[in-house]
Amino acid sequence: MSAAAPRIGFRNDYSEGAHPRLLAALAAASAEQNAGYGLDRHSARAAELIRAEIGCADADVHLLVGGTQTNLTAIAAFLRPHQAVIAAACGHIATHETGAIEATGHKVLTVDAADGRLTPERIAPLLAEHGNEHLVQPRLVYVSNTTEVGTLYRKHELQALRAFCDAHGLLLFLDGARIGSALTAEGNDLRMADVAALTDAFYIGGTKNGALLGEALVILDPALKADFRYLLKQRGALLAKGMVLGTQFAALFEDGLFYELATHANRMAARLRDGLAAAGAQFASDSPTNQLFVILPAAAVDLLAQRYDFERWQRLGDGRWVIRFVTSWATQDAAVDTLIADFAALTRSGTQRAAG
Amino acid sequence: MSAAAPRIGFRNDYSEGAHPRLLAALAAASAEQNAGYGLDRHSARAAELIRAEIGCADADVHLLVGGTQTNLTAIAAFLRPHQAVIAAACGHIATHETGAIEATGHKVLTVDAADGRLTPERIAPLLAEHGNEHLVQPRLVYVSNTTEVGTLYRKHELQALRAFCDAHGLLLFLDGARIGSALTAEGNDLRMADVAALTDAFYIGGTKNGALLGEALVILDPALKADFRYLLKQRGALLAKGMVLGTQFAALFEDGLFYELATHANRMAARLRDGLAAAGAQFASDSPTNQLFVILPAAAVDLLAQRYDFERWQRLGDGRWVIRFVTSWATQDAAVDTLIADFAALTRSGTQRAAG
Amino acid sequence: MSAAAPRIGFRNDYSEGAHPRLLAALAAASAEQNAGYGLDRHSARAAELIRAEIGCADADVHLLVGGTQTNLTAIAAFLRPHQAVIAAACGHIATHETGAIEATGHKVLTVDAADGRLTPERIAPLLAEHGNEHLVQPRLVYVSNTTEVGTLYRKHELQALRAFCDAHGLLLFLDGARIGSALTAEGNDLRMADVAALTDAFYIGGTKNGALLGEALVILDPALKADFRYLLKQRGALLAKGMVLGTQFAALFEDGLFYELATHANRMAARLRDGLAAAGAQFASDSPTNQLFVILPAAAVDLLAQRYDFERWQRLGDGRWVIRFVTSWATQDAAVDTLIADFAALTRSGTQRAAG
Amino acid sequence: MSAAAPRIGFRNDYSEGAHPRLLAALAAASAEQNAGYGLDRHSARAAELIRAEIGCADADVHLLVGGTQTNLTAIAAFLRPHQAVIAAACGHIATHETGAIEATGHKVLTVDAADGRLTPERIAPLLAEHGNEHLVQPRLVYVSNTTEVGTLYRKHELQALRAFCDAHGLLLFLDGARIGSALTAEGNDLRMADVAALTDAFYIGGTKNGALLGEALVILDPALKADFRYLLKQRGALLAKGMVLGTQFAALFEDGLFYELATHANRMAARLRDGLAAAGAQFASDSPTNQLFVILPAAAVDLLAQRYDFERWQRLGDGRWVIRFVTSWATQDAAVDTLIADFAALTRSGTQRAAG
Repeated sequence: MSAAAPRIGFRNDYSEGAHPRLLAALAAASAEQNAGYGLDRHSARAAELIRAEIGCADADVHLLVGGTQTNLTAIAAFLRPHQAVIAAACGHIATHETGAIEATGHKVLTVDAADGRLTPERIAPLLAEHGNEHLVQPRLVYVSNTTEVGTLYRKHELQALRAFCDAHGLLLFLDGARIGSALTAEGNDLRMADVAALTDAFYIGGTKNGALLGEALVILDPALKADFRYLLKQRGALLAKGMVLGTQFAALFEDGLFYELATHANRMAARLRDGLAAAGAQFASDSPTNQLFVILPAAAVDLLAQRYDFERWQRLGDGRWVIRFVTSWATQDAAVDTLIADFAALTRSGTQRAAG
Repeated sequence: MSAAAPRIGFRNDYSEGAHPRLLAALAAASAEQNAGYGLDRHSARAAELIRAEIGCADADVHLLVGGTQTNLTAIAAFLRPHQAVIAAACGHIATHETGAIEATGHKVLTVDAADGRLTPERIAPLLAEHGNEHLVQPRLVYVSNTTEVGTLYRKHELQALRAFCDAHGLLLFLDGARIGSALTAEGNDLRMADVAALTDAFYIGGTKNGALLGEALVILDPALKADFRYLLKQRGALLAKGMVLGTQFAALFEDGLFYELATHANRMAARLRDGLAAAGAQFASDSPTNQLFVILPAAAVDLLAQRYDFERWQRLGDGRWVIRFVTSWATQDAAVDTLIADFAALTRSGTQRAAG
Repeated sequence: MSAAAPRIGFRNDYSEGAHPRLLAALAAASAEQNAGYGLDRHSARAAELIRAEIGCADADVHLLVGGTQTNLTAIAAFLRPHQAVIAAACGHIATHETGAIEATGHKVLTVDAADGRLTPERIAPLLAEHGNEHLVQPRLVYVSNTTEVGTLYRKHELQALRAFCDAHGLLLFLDGARIGSALTAEGNDLRMADVAALTDAFYIGGTKNGALLGEALVILDPALKADFRYLLKQRGALLAKGMVLGTQFAALFEDGLFYELATHANRMAARLRDGLAAAGAQFASDSPTNQLFVILPAAAVDLLAQRYDFERWQRLGDGRWVIRFVTSWATQDAAVDTLIADFAALTRSGTQRAAG
Repeated sequence: MSAAAPRIGFRNDYSEGAHPRLLAALAAASAEQNAGYGLDRHSARAAELIRAEIGCADADVHLLVGGTQTNLTAIAAFLRPHQAVIAAACGHIATHETGAIEATGHKVLTVDAADGRLTPERIAPLLAEHGNEHLVQPRLVYVSNTTEVGTLYRKHELQALRAFCDAHGLLLFLDGARIGSALTAEGNDLRMADVAALTDAFYIGGTKNGALLGEALVILDPALKADFRYLLKQRGALLAKGMVLGTQFAALFEDGLFYELATHANRMAARLRDGLAAAGAQFASDSPTNQLFVILPAAAVDLLAQRYDFERWQRLGDGRWVIRFVTSWATQDAAVDTLIADFAALTRSGTQRAAG
């Protein structure tokens, strides 16, 4: 395995920029004069397309720049100061957002969930421990689909969470940074309209599915809609040239490109998963989506890292690593095949089974 | 004056998108794989060019999405909880950012300054009123160049502020959302390097000078540099595809395009100012930059608004309006000339002098 | 005038501790076992007495430690993140609480009011300037009674504010740190029940009217009541031994002691005002309450300061001082008479008229 | 067991008020005029006594009202926005302060510690997981002594934490709400001076050791001292009549009363522990201090609750309860003996062994 060439990228789904059709739409609009701060016709069109997609004519749609910004702006807008979020221990807001939610004043309560999924059964004990003014008041359930470990929510699971939230006065918020991959994955039975019907608010990730940047926040619960643009502005989330986001989301939802791109990423991941599995790979989670988590000895990881770019996700107690391969709308078959071949060679050489 | 055609835009300098060279750079990089979160080579290149521009090899340069985000992230990073900002009463953070600074916990103390400029003389009384623990502790002086009313800081003015800040243990922070227009305006004697030498931190506005989005924050004071990327991430200001900003700033500073675009905006504003003045216009501030503030009777404003898009800035006590015309890198001579002609016609018809 | 003896205190109304009846109640309860965190029978009794006093059986009454704590806890509880407070420029929260409100994330908008009073006419222009998402949303009107310059609200003034607030969707919050002095002042026509009827929430100051510490927050608006004890706990305002506050407020309201103590303070102030006026004193505000603001040359201030303890409130442009004399429930006639005599002697000697 | 009489209290150590000597000191000072806001001579005297006690002449001592207030004020003062606290999962700030730390913007990272104690070994893995800008930056280690489950830190344990903190650039903060009980417990080898020498800041709890209210925060690290009174004021923690706290702490430390009271509480707890143990009680933690945690079937708990007031601390998976008995400076031998006798009777009757 040679390290002469630049490393082949499986690090994440935001290494490449935007799909050419998005760039073209952006360039065209760039020559126009557009209203500022998201009041442009492209943003309006994007919102219209998303409302049509979810079959909800009165949903509020706001386009924001990134996931952390969307999470912190929405959650802080939805809660009173003493209220807290419930998330999986691996939830993005609980780990990889530098305390962004806490910086707005709210505690993130966590629940262990090795597969990344919250369930009523997992949340119930936490609710039971709370209930008086010496503790925070759990108010919003935060779920990610796909989860941070690549797993999915099935429709009945989201329905169960919805029923549980209704029974306990909780809001349900879904982080859809990778919702494209979720909704096009094998085994998925949710449509975007189901997500809208089952949550109080959710967002549709553009950044990780072919846009330069952008997340579309959809607010369904009328009680959460008031004055939201004030919150956007206050958090620095109102883009002066909102058409930058509007054009891209309009292009993604004009004719199904959003799903096409996600489908491609999933297909590349499936091809990679099958190839690695055939070569004996052991997976840390059962992911049908565009993130694969593979357990490998350290020596094997070092060898792979000479040619491939990927994330060392977690060090296990026995010295082995969980590494993460991510595919995207831009991943090429050839890259996948090369990785499979190299991995298989590693396996045959025995390095894959060596101590970490 | 007919209202059949779309209105000609003088509302702001962010109506158009990006200069074609920026779009081209972005499109080219979009096809590459780049490191995430601002660690890409384009962002590194942009930082290098900016450091060269200011002659300061060890400045920290961070690329953020917008002005409000930059102001709140930087100011909150630089202050302890009891410390406050000093700004002009018309300062952007004091008025048009929806309390973004306060939302991070800090009071904005204001000083009246009709021409938008802070001076030691204007700040000193405020310092005298403070000084014990029952009041906030003034710690950071926020100035904008150009100011919110289109005026400039001259070099000796910024030097005087620097000396005053040094004498009183204050930080000096410059909001350069329109620094391009400032540094290329008639009468300006500051270079970018002077701004860097005289402030603790400042930023270079891309959004209002030909970029799709983006502000380049430059931190000069070593005491303010530590851990700044944590703050970026926490505030939602770390863009996954940082190359979106990096490519644009690299293009702006590769060969002087930044100053070319600003010079054009200023030239268009000067042409407009001279034309309006010749037609008898009365200006609310003495702006040599790309924002012009004209006082007009309400009836005249209504007539102009049929054909032109501009901001009604402030209602005066006598019923007249201050309206704002803004030119940009994309403003056309023809648009300026048409506006001048229509304004002159208004004047001749007497409407311009009618009661508001 | 000799400086041998300790200086006679007119600095504030919190120099002395508590009235003996409060100390006795506290000592008695100290020997009991009481429930913690304000759930004790004394706090319940205090709340009951206050509800009876205001004729409002369903008001929520919470006992807090001090004024800044009460202001920040209540205001932060009542507002969403983008909402702001309107206060007089001399309002306590705007000046002398070290940015406590801003530290909870909310901007304090100020209105000039030399006499300390807000009126619809003074607030209306500020509302007119706001109204879109680029500015904070004014939501709560903060008034103090007595005001920070010793003036009062008359009933029709508070009614006018109430009507204005209703018309504009604003909350009305009254800081009653010195409400005892207000409600017992000459010229006052408000009863405690009126204050309750006309505000959404207000508080009754104990600290400055004979208690060791304590403010009784009364929440009238049902929409503001939910979960308030969570907010108390979160801000550190829930006292473990809540009976410390409960016993004192029960003693204050058991049989009118609250008003007796305030009446005494006002009577002492009236005696002092009349005496000083007779000696030619010039007052900076027209205060019928327990704070008097006297304008004096610096030399006279220095002389008085040798024997009396008072606050130098504000330096005037001409070098003279506004000094503040405060009387309290514990002020003695003799102290007042001595001060009057010394002041009159100063006047006769001409020092009072000397240049500052 | 009869329920006719009021229940005998073992609920907490803040049911009674203050020791008579504290009340007497307070009553005496109440008749004086004292400077406000903690600048009175009693507060100065208290600080002096505490500095003498810890042998550290330049320590800063601030008197605050309660534990939550002290924790939130100090921790928020010591951290930058992206920095986090490390606490035991049962740490008071992590559980029973309604998210007070998060409300100031900081995440509380937790480490499992069944016995309530942090150790380098328990903290190290958490540090290893952090280290880049996508996660918060651990900066302050929060320990409680006694811990929330009644255990103690021994001197070598605190030394080990100090060394670990030094090695990793961490601050060490000790919550001493029950430090009296800790320092007088059997098996303790720490003196107050040791705590001061080994921490960056800590506080001495008065509320739970014989005061009406009050915690004395001691700041040792010079870098943490600047401007602390601003922070006190901003958080509502600066008491107008600071002598209320000053007199009590002076009385506690004038001649060892602080330790006497704690010793009594511990002796009562020891007597109770021995008695319960002799009757077969099973303890949930090995507490040599004034909190005892006893595991009991639900039926036994219900019976005891007819006559005794105590906290139901935690429901176990098997239906049994952990209940908490707390003794205080005011606990009577007779109360302890009665409880022991009733408990022994319960045991003999078999209820104690019945299913929950």
